[in-house]
Amino acid sequence: MEQHSNILKYKHLGIYTQNENVVYMRDDCLVCISEGFEALTRIRVAKVTRSIVASLNVINSDILLPNEIGLSDAAAKKLNVSPNDMLYVSHLEPIESLSHVRAKIYNQKLNYDAYNQIIKDIVEGDYSNIHLSAFITACAGDRMDIDEISDLTKAMIASGKQLNWNKEIVVDKHCIGGLPGNRTTPLVVAIVAAYGLTMPKTSSRAITSPAGTADTMEVLTNVALSADEIENVVNQEGGCFVWGGTAQLSPADDVLIKIEKALDIDSEGQLIASVLSKKAAAGSTHVVIDIPVGETAKVRSMEMAEKLKNHLENVGKAVGLKVKAIITDGSQPVGYGIGPTLEAIDILNVLKNEEDAPKDLKERVVLLAGELLELSGKVEKEKGMETAKEVLISGKAYEKFLAICKAQGRFTQPVLAPFKTEIRAETSGILKRIDNRKIAKLAKLSGAPQSKSAGISLNVHLNDKVEKDGLLYTLFAESQGELNYALEYKNRHNDIITIK
Amino acid sequence: MEQHSNILKYKHLGIYTQNENVVYMRDDCLVCISEGFEALTRIRVAKVTRSIVASLNVINSDILLPNEIGLSDAAAKKLNVSPNDMLYVSHLEPIESLSHVRAKIYNQKLNYDAYNQIIKDIVEGDYSNIHLSAFITACAGDRMDIDEISDLTKAMIASGKQLNWNKEIVVDKHCIGGLPGNRTTPLVVAIVAAYGLTMPKTSSRAITSPAGTADTMEVLTNVALSADEIENVVNQEGGCFVWGGTAQLSPADDVLIKIEKALDIDSEGQLIASVLSKKAAAGSTHVVIDIPVGETAKVRSMEMAEKLKNHLENVGKAVGLKVKAIITDGSQPVGYGIGPTLEAIDILNVLKNEEDAPKDLKERVVLLAGELLELSGKVEKEKGMETAKEVLISGKAYEKFLAICKAQGRFTQPVLAPFKTEIRAETSGILKRIDNRKIAKLAKLSGAPQSKSAGISLNVHLNDKVEKDGLLYTLFAESQGELNYALEYKNRHNDIITIK
Repeated sequence: MEQHSNILKYKHLGIYTQNENVVYMRDDCLVCISEGFEALTRIRVAKVTRSIVASLNVINSDILLPNEIGLSDAAAKKLNVSPNDMLYVSHLEPIESLSHVRAKIYNQKLNYDAYNQIIKDIVEGDYSNIHLSAFITACAGDRMDIDEISDLTKAMIASGKQLNWNKEIVVDKHCIGGLPGNRTTPLVVAIVAAYGLTMPKTSSRAITSPAGTADTMEVLTNVALSADEIENVVNQEGGCFVWGGTAQLSPADDVLIKIEKALDIDSEGQLIASVLSKKAAAGSTHVVIDIPVGETAKVRSMEMAEKLKNHLENVGKAVGLKVKAIITDGSQPVGYGIGPTLEAIDILNVLKNEEDAPKDLKERVVLLAGELLELSGKVEKEKGMETAKEVLISGKAYEKFLAICKAQGRFTQPVLAPFKTEIRAETSGILKRIDNRKIAKLAKLSGAPQSKSAGISLNVHLNDKVEKDGLLYTLFAESQGELNYALEYKNRHNDIITIK
Repeated sequence: MEQHSNILKYKHLGIYTQNENVVYMRDDCLVCISEGFEALTRIRVAKVTRSIVASLNVINSDILLPNEIGLSDAAAKKLNVSPNDMLYVSHLEPIESLSHVRAKIYNQKLNYDAYNQIIKDIVEGDYSNIHLSAFITACAGDRMDIDEISDLTKAMIASGKQLNWNKEIVVDKHCIGGLPGNRTTPLVVAIVAAYGLTMPKTSSRAITSPAGTADTMEVLTNVALSADEIENVVNQEGGCFVWGGTAQLSPADDVLIKIEKALDIDSEGQLIASVLSKKAAAGSTHVVIDIPVGETAKVRSMEMAEKLKNHLENVGKAVGLKVKAIITDGSQPVGYGIGPTLEAIDILNVLKNEEDAPKDLKERVVLLAGELLELSGKVEKEKGMETAKEVLISGKAYEKFLAICKAQGRFTQPVLAPFKTEIRAETSGILKRIDNRKIAKLAKLSGAPQSKSAGISLNVHLNDKVEKDGLLYTLFAESQGELNYALEYKNRHNDIITIK
């Protein structure tokens, strides 16, 4: 039991495991033998000034020597190590907050302190993926009441940075995802900022969709701005549309969302805490939330939507946010374009009041911007939509949009992709159904969002009368290979668009 | 999208991750780029004749070349690969059974087919630790009814090998763990086999305790026998006490139990399915289950114990096992010894009817063996304990015990450890409490079960009158260092034994 056997020399192995802290040590290293460490043992790894918790993977090859230690990239970054640093390893003291997770597994109600401890330890990286998955599962399936969702949301807000805009009213909007092409955000920002409200909008890149708002806006302007740059843009123009990835708002959410993705669940409690914690941490005071409902959207029934609306508004109240949730039609994609460049073109056409601008996108934008104007109290009830429409038609929204783009560093016109194929109807009839998930998948296979100009331009909408050989949509890609790849998928699936 | 980019050359990295299949590929390998693989993506990895599913860890150092691929040891073993084998990687088709896990997360009742698909995929290695943790959590907290526990048990039985002894009656016993020194199994085997019943007992090594039955028996005889050797011993002597580790009975349980350990939960449904599936797969027909109840035992209240008893017996019926569960006192350790050698000495003293044999161990053994004799129908009701006692007192059980040991390859006398310290009472009074968990931890720190002769020999039991400086227990170790390590723990905890 001599102390020095617990000190090992760091070697860079360069293993990227997402967020999970993994420590690599040899099976024949002295500390493994003397401490009884084995694979998956949770171990504390320390430098002089800081320490992390990591799961052990045991090495029995020469990628490490017995006196060396490796770390996954996430762990190395958190510990800020350099090759040949000496690291001290020891048994992990029990993680107290796991007793709360166990209590939740056994159906007990947790209070704010419990959620706060759990979320703190998650942000510290003390939970393995096994623990994270258990926490998410224990909270899913309607096992959290409004109090608990509120407490979880507060704990998530407290876990990260919080922005302060020194404004009485700061507005925001959010869409409960799942609808291809539903790119209302930049348009709403342009309208409400043109009207004089403050809307410092941060958006995400695509996680599983063919384009996130940040991907789309990157076609037209810079979105990866520093905190200082964002502040300057918002102070100057009243709004922005930037990528939120570096903001460190609600960092626990970034960890949990990856586990939810691996499980392919999006439990109500976590969803609400995720959305509202990000909004509150970003300094918002008034938030409109769009809940599209449809058979192939994320929210599939009116009953689920009503419940979600109710919970969002009540939890919002509990954490000091004015929230209005709007249930919208989620039966089909919005606009014509699916994919960053094609969606950017839709946005510009709406802003410029072009004849062929997508009407459905425009209507949604006017609805959401109108609700936001009313919620802020700056426009009286029943006058929101009218006001939003005026700002759009007048060209002021377009002006504001260009001004924000320029404040963010550039305005670039979108350019169509070089490769394309037109997909035509094999039969005539009425367009009965569009599968949101499959059309999104098709756009992704054509290269979106990595290839910005890849994607789909829809020519039809639900209930349109379609002639045989009439144009249904155009597939765009940046290489012939990607175009073929998407076509193969299309040929294997005859239920992407249903005509009867 | 050329196919050959999906073929990579296997390199041995020697990374042991327990059961989890992990695949290592370079961030700049062509297939990662073209297929959009990223860390934690679930990937199918195939050789010509077989394939596995693994989670990706992305490598950005020279431990791999861009055209090479690595696997965790578990994955390499399942795929049976050798260095330079060419492996084909592809996107994973969706794992259908995860939809059942999601249904369970959302509180739906699952049927046999659903559990069967889940368990099959778990045994195949298709579930990541994230999925396994979600499944265990979703099944915990009283979320399974008797039908579901029965269906899960049946699915776990079907997932592995099943032994057949060609006997009408095959008896077994099991203890719902948590009580140090409770080493009744070998004694029960000796008694019922001496009486003429068949009891092919497989036991586990210690998971978190200072000794498993297999560790203890290994002091006295060989326990790592092949399936053929076990069959020979049982045919010759009617019983055995061997290690069950290589038997491949209920293999899903081996995977799930490691995740439960990481979560430190042992949910009722999984516990019942685990115990009964192992018994049924081992070919047992009549099983007595010991449920010790105590404040620091695994089962802490009579209410929990009654419920568990009820469920064990009912699920047993559903899967065709005659089960009798017995609730026993779990307030303190059983016998004197804690640790393999010290427990082996207790066993021999009971068999030899020694004056100083631990009475509590003897009473438990007579109770359990008696219940088993009655359950089998070979001894009439109310006569079991009397019969068991006769077999023990007569020396026939000791004779049978030695015969089984010899059939298993050797009988070795236990030898005490070279280093020891006596722990004495600091005050006089009545012994009010023994902390089962802490005394077990102390025995482990002294070196048990790796050091066979390490451990604790208790000199006192609950409610004993203790004089100041009277002997409480003796700590044994195989090195002075281990003895010191245990003593340090003892000195930091003054509530291992409470005298008032």
